[in-house]
Amino acid sequence: MQETRQGSVTLVLGGARSGKSRYAQQLAEQSRHVVFVATAKASDEEMRAEGEDSAAIGGRVEALCEALRTAQCTVVLVSNEVGSGVVPPYPVGCRFRDLLGEINQKVARVADDVVLMVAGLPLALKGHVEVTL
Amino acid sequence: MQETRQGSVTLVLGGARSGKSRYAQQLAEQSRHVVFVATAKASDEEMRAEGEDSAAIGGRVEALCEALRTAQCTVVLVSNEVGSGVVPPYPVGCRFRDLLGEINQKVARVADDVVLMVAGLPLALKGHVEVTL
Amino acid sequence: MQETRQGSVTLVLGGARSGKSRYAQQLAEQSRHVVFVATAKASDEEMRAEGEDSAAIGGRVEALCEALRTAQCTVVLVSNEVGSGVVPPYPVGCRFRDLLGEINQKVARVADDVVLMVAGLPLALKGHVEVTL
Repeated sequence: MQETRQGSVTLVLGGARSGKSRYAQQLAEQSRHVVFVATAKASDEEMRAEGEDSAAIGGRVEALCEALRTAQCTVVLVSNEVGSGVVPPYPVGCRFRDLLGEINQKVARVADDVVLMVAGLPLALKGHVEVTL
Repeated sequence: MQETRQGSVTLVLGGARSGKSRYAQQLAEQSRHVVFVATAKASDEEMRAEGEDSAAIGGRVEALCEALRTAQCTVVLVSNEVGSGVVPPYPVGCRFRDLLGEINQKVARVADDVVLMVAGLPLALKGHVEVTL
Repeated sequence: MQETRQGSVTLVLGGARSGKSRYAQQLAEQSRHVVFVATAKASDEEMRAEGEDSAAIGGRVEALCEALRTAQCTVVLVSNEVGSGVVPPYPVGCRFRDLLGEINQKVARVADDVVLMVAGLPLALKGHVEVTL
């Protein structure tokens, strides 16, 4: 844990009930700087409200990534791993899965640390694990 | 592989057909001490029979974790990773997923070794991989 | 990256939209030798056409593994991780999940490198990660 870092971006990934939020919270608590924690968990309802406008979503993801690249504080993002089951039996599930998978890839590319949570345990996919749970 | 260990607890996690049981079996075979292998795979039927009594389940999980903390033999537990798909389209699926995710976290916390199986290959999430497949 | 390797087999695993194909493509591009890239993604339709003949599938998988063992070129195989969700609500989903899980295990056993992709980031399950994305 460095206490002098600035502008670090951490992406915390994991399946349902994998301990993502706890990891993110502890990471935020041990930071001295301004921290923004965001959970990128869209509900089906939101997805439906979104309609078919993939371009608009793409634009917002691009804006998010640009903001992350120039962030001057500690940013912790939490997102779900949803792509490791069989093909979802409902169309909005497929769309959500594909969209979130692509967003996760884009955010992971600009993040300093990417951590995959499994059963409450962190696994570094990129950078370092900075929290001991 | 240590042949003198006592009271070690290993949790073997993984998706369907990931090689969990084979790993657990080989780990058990190479142990000199008493071994107990448990598969924490509840069927939908069991879940339904369980009804809504989350408190009773929580109590039993707590008792299991307490037993694991004081175990004097090699214990190998096998459990499923079920939280990395989209939201299940049936309610009992959601409940099973959330419950098993929380149980996995609790057991992982008291385990010495936690191994994630992917395509028959073990990945250490905590402690060590003790079997060469 | 070795430029003199011959007959190396890499299995690239991952969920939907995890960056598998991009990794495989870059691995293929940096190889000097003949490369064969295969995507083991059977559609439900294919599964149905297959009918119940598990023995025929098993035979073809065995032939593939034998070919991989004696391959004189760089082989990159891409396959899906589909076993980490809840039990699929449709029978062909269960069958596909179990079958692909077993195929992945068999191919992983003969592969030199097995890489799990998560959010576009490679994690070595066996051997090495040979691409920097």
